[in-house]
Amino acid sequence: MVKITGSPHPHADNEDRHAREVASMYGLTPKVEVAIRYTIQNQQWNRLRMLVDPLHPADKADFLERISAEDLRILVRQLGPDFDAEILPYLHEEVRENVRDLLDPDVFAASLPELDSDDVVTIAEELAPEQLNEALAALPAQERVLVEQSLAYPEDSAGRMMQREMVVVPPFWTVGQTIDFLRSSELDRGEFYLIMVTDASGHPVGEVRLSKLLCTQRPRRIAEIMDTETRSIPATMDQEEVALLFRRYGMITTGVIDEEGRLVGIITLDDIIDVIDEEAEEDLMALAGVSDASIRTSVLETFQGRAPWLFVNLITAVIASVVIGFFESTIEKVVALAVLMPIVASMGGNAGTQTVTVAVRAIAMREFSPKVAVTFGLRELYVGIANGLIFAVVTAGLSYVWFGDAQIALVLGIAMLVNMVVAAISGTLIPLSLVKLGVDPAIASSVFITTITDVIGFLVFLGLAALYLL
Amino acid sequence: MVKITGSPHPHADNEDRHAREVASMYGLTPKVEVAIRYTIQNQQWNRLRMLVDPLHPADKADFLERISAEDLRILVRQLGPDFDAEILPYLHEEVRENVRDLLDPDVFAASLPELDSDDVVTIAEELAPEQLNEALAALPAQERVLVEQSLAYPEDSAGRMMQREMVVVPPFWTVGQTIDFLRSSELDRGEFYLIMVTDASGHPVGEVRLSKLLCTQRPRRIAEIMDTETRSIPATMDQEEVALLFRRYGMITTGVIDEEGRLVGIITLDDIIDVIDEEAEEDLMALAGVSDASIRTSVLETFQGRAPWLFVNLITAVIASVVIGFFESTIEKVVALAVLMPIVASMGGNAGTQTVTVAVRAIAMREFSPKVAVTFGLRELYVGIANGLIFAVVTAGLSYVWFGDAQIALVLGIAMLVNMVVAAISGTLIPLSLVKLGVDPAIASSVFITTITDVIGFLVFLGLAALYLL
Repeated sequence: MVKITGSPHPHADNEDRHAREVASMYGLTPKVEVAIRYTIQNQQWNRLRMLVDPLHPADKADFLERISAEDLRILVRQLGPDFDAEILPYLHEEVRENVRDLLDPDVFAASLPELDSDDVVTIAEELAPEQLNEALAALPAQERVLVEQSLAYPEDSAGRMMQREMVVVPPFWTVGQTIDFLRSSELDRGEFYLIMVTDASGHPVGEVRLSKLLCTQRPRRIAEIMDTETRSIPATMDQEEVALLFRRYGMITTGVIDEEGRLVGIITLDDIIDVIDEEAEEDLMALAGVSDASIRTSVLETFQGRAPWLFVNLITAVIASVVIGFFESTIEKVVALAVLMPIVASMGGNAGTQTVTVAVRAIAMREFSPKVAVTFGLRELYVGIANGLIFAVVTAGLSYVWFGDAQIALVLGIAMLVNMVVAAISGTLIPLSLVKLGVDPAIASSVFITTITDVIGFLVFLGLAALYLL
Repeated sequence: MVKITGSPHPHADNEDRHAREVASMYGLTPKVEVAIRYTIQNQQWNRLRMLVDPLHPADKADFLERISAEDLRILVRQLGPDFDAEILPYLHEEVRENVRDLLDPDVFAASLPELDSDDVVTIAEELAPEQLNEALAALPAQERVLVEQSLAYPEDSAGRMMQREMVVVPPFWTVGQTIDFLRSSELDRGEFYLIMVTDASGHPVGEVRLSKLLCTQRPRRIAEIMDTETRSIPATMDQEEVALLFRRYGMITTGVIDEEGRLVGIITLDDIIDVIDEEAEEDLMALAGVSDASIRTSVLETFQGRAPWLFVNLITAVIASVVIGFFESTIEKVVALAVLMPIVASMGGNAGTQTVTVAVRAIAMREFSPKVAVTFGLRELYVGIANGLIFAVVTAGLSYVWFGDAQIALVLGIAMLVNMVVAAISGTLIPLSLVKLGVDPAIASSVFITTITDVIGFLVFLGLAALYLL
C-alpha cells in the first residue's frame, strides 16, 4: 500500500507516486502490458493466455484497442474459441467491428448468448442484415425473441438500452417467499439492484430495493414494503430524456414499459453513463464542427465528416469577404483599416461563442424556462456592454499608439462596442431560436454567431471609416 | 396511458403527444407549477403546502430555481421550519446560497443531520468559516467527526465525495447472521447496494452484492460468497480519476480507503454522474473561453470570468494584425488581398479547432497512448492535406472569378493548403504537448491554435503575394 499525503496538485515527487497509485488501480499496468506484448512477439501462446485470462474484460478491451492491427489479428486468432465474449461490450465500435471480422463467425455467434440482452442489442445494431440473422439464429429461442423485440424500438430509445433480464414477483408474495425463490433460482451470477413487482397482467405496481428486502422480516408482504412512487419509462422514450430523468431524480435503476404499460425491461444507471458521455461529446463536437468524435475513425470517414463543416465555414468567410469588398476603395486610401479590421471580427466572434456555449450547455441540461431565458439574456447584454466598453477603450488606445490617428481609434472603439453587444444579443437569441425551430442549437449556433459577428464587425468598422475618415 | 408508436423524429402530431408523455414523467408538471404560483400570489399558504409537500425534492428544487427572487423569499419564509432538507443537495450552488441566506440559521443547521454525510460535505464546502462551525455544531457528535474527516481531504477528492454511512460485516459471519443483523437494524430507510467486508483492523477484504446475498443459503459464510477482486479507491484520489475508474469497469459502488488502507466510506455511481457532467462542462467551457458555465452566475462574476479570456484573444488578434502590418504596402497596391486574407485565417482556425476538439476529448477520456497518438497525428495530417487541396482549388477558383487574377488565385490556393496542413499538425501537437507540460489542454489549446493559424495564414498569403505579385 503506497501511502499518499498531499494536495490535488502534488509536487514532482508526489506526482510520481500519484501516477503509480493511479496506475495500480487498473488491472492492465504498464508492466503487464509490456509482458503481453513480449509473449506475442515471441509467440509464447500459453504464457499469453496466463497473462490475459485474469484481466477484467474492460482491461482486455483496452489492450486490444491499443495494439497494432497486425497484433490484434494475431491475438484474436490465437484466442480463437476461447475469446472472452465479455470483452465485446467494452470495445469502441470501430475496434469491435475489426474484432468481429477477425473472429470465426461461429465463435462470434456462440459468444452472444453469454452476454446480457442489452449488450447483445448494442452489438446487433451494428451488424449487416445477413450477419444479424446469423447472430440471432445462434441465440436460444427465448432470448432471440427478446433481442428482436428490443431491436424493434427506435434507435437511441429506452427500448434499445434496456436489459430484459430482471426479477419480477407478485405483490402478494411475502419477503420470505421472495428470498426462498431467489435462493432456489440461478440468479446469483447476475447483478440486480431492484425487484420489480407486477400485477397479473404484467403492469408494474411497485419496486422493492434489495436493501429494504434484506432489512424486512420474512412474514411481511411485498405489497407492504414496495415503493409505489416509481417512474416507469416508456420504451420509446429517447435515451437523452431517460438520462435527464435519471439525473434529475438520482435514480439507480428503473423499469421500462411497452405501449400497453406492461413491464418489459429495466435500465440501470451504468447504461446511462454511456448516454451522458455520448451527449456531452456530441455537443462539444457539434460546436467545433466535427461530425465524428473518435480518434479511431478512418482518414476517409474523418475527411467526409469534416469537409462539409469547413465548406459551411467557407461560405460564411466569403460573406465576410464580400462585406470587406464593399470598402475596397476605403482600404486602399487608409490601409491601417485592413490591419485593424480582423481584431473587431475576432473579438466579436469570441464573445459570441462564449455566450452561445453557455446557452447550448444549459439547453442540453434543460435549464431554460422563459423567465430564466430573460434573466440570462439581460445578463449577457450587460456583460457584453461592459466588455464592449473596456475593449473599445483598450483597442482604441492601442490603435492610436500604433497609427497615431484619433479618428481611426474612435471608429475602432465604436465598432468594437457595437460588435460585442451584437455578439451578446445574437449569442443568446440564436441558440434559443434554433431550439424553437427544432434545430439542434449545438450544431448550427457556431456558424450563425461567427457569420453575424464577422459581418457586423467589418461592416460597422469599415462603414464608419468610409463615412468619417475620407 | 398514452399510446406511443413511431420514430424518434415524430411528426407534429406525435411531437405534441411525445412532449406530453415526457412532461408526465416529471412530478412538477406545468399544471402543478401554475397552481403553486397561484397559491403564492394569493397567499393561500395551506393549499401551497398541500401542493408542494408530495413533490420529489428534485422537483421542489427545480421549482425554487425557476421562480423570481421575491417568490423564493416568500416561499422559503412560508415553509420556515418545515423546509425539506432533502431539497438542498438538488439545488444549484448559487440558488442554494440564496436559500441558505433566507432560512433561519437554526432551521438550516437543524436540517443538516437529515442528510447523507456526502451531501452534508457538499453543503459544508460552500460555507464561510463561522457558518461552518455553527453548522457542524448542530450535527450529532459522531456525524460531526465524519464530516470533519471528509473535509480534511483535498477538494474534488474521493474523500469529499464519499458517503460515510455503509454496512460493514466481518468475513466469518454467515449469510443468516448478516440478514438477521440487517433486520434488527434501522437501515431499511437508507439505500445501499453493497455490503462491505473488513478484517478486525478495518481493512477491506471483500464486498458482497446484495443480489448475491439474497440468492445464498443462510448457513454459508460471507467469506465464501464475497467478491475479493474489488477496487478500493484511496480517499485522496481526484474525482476525475474516480469517474474514469467507474466508467472503465462499469462499477455501481465501491469502497474508499484512508492512508492506512482502512475502509472509510463508499462512493456510488450516482455521485459519479455529477463529476462526469462537471468535467464535460469544464472542457466545453474551457474550449470556448468561459470560466463560469452557469446561466445563473451574476453579471459581475460572468464579466470577471469572460474578460480575461477576451483579453488573451485580443493579444492573439493583435499579433495577427502585426503580421498584416508588415505587408501594408503590398495591401495598398493590391487591395484584393485585404478582402481575401480573412478567408485563409478563418479556414485554418476552423480546421485546427476541429482537430484540437477531438484531441482534447480523447485526452479527457484517457484514450491516447504513444501508438494511438502517432496514428491520430497521421490521420489528421492526411485529412488536413485532403481538405487543404480541396479548399485550395475551391478558393482559388472563387478568387479568380471574383478578381480575374490568376496570380492572386494561385497565391490564395497555396496559402490555403499550407494553413490547413499547419492546422492539422499544430492541432495535434498543441494539446498533446500541453498535457506533457501539465497544462489543461482544454484551456490553452484554442488560443494557441487560432494564433498559429492566423499568423501562418496571413504570413503565407501576404508574404507570397509580396514576393510574386509586385
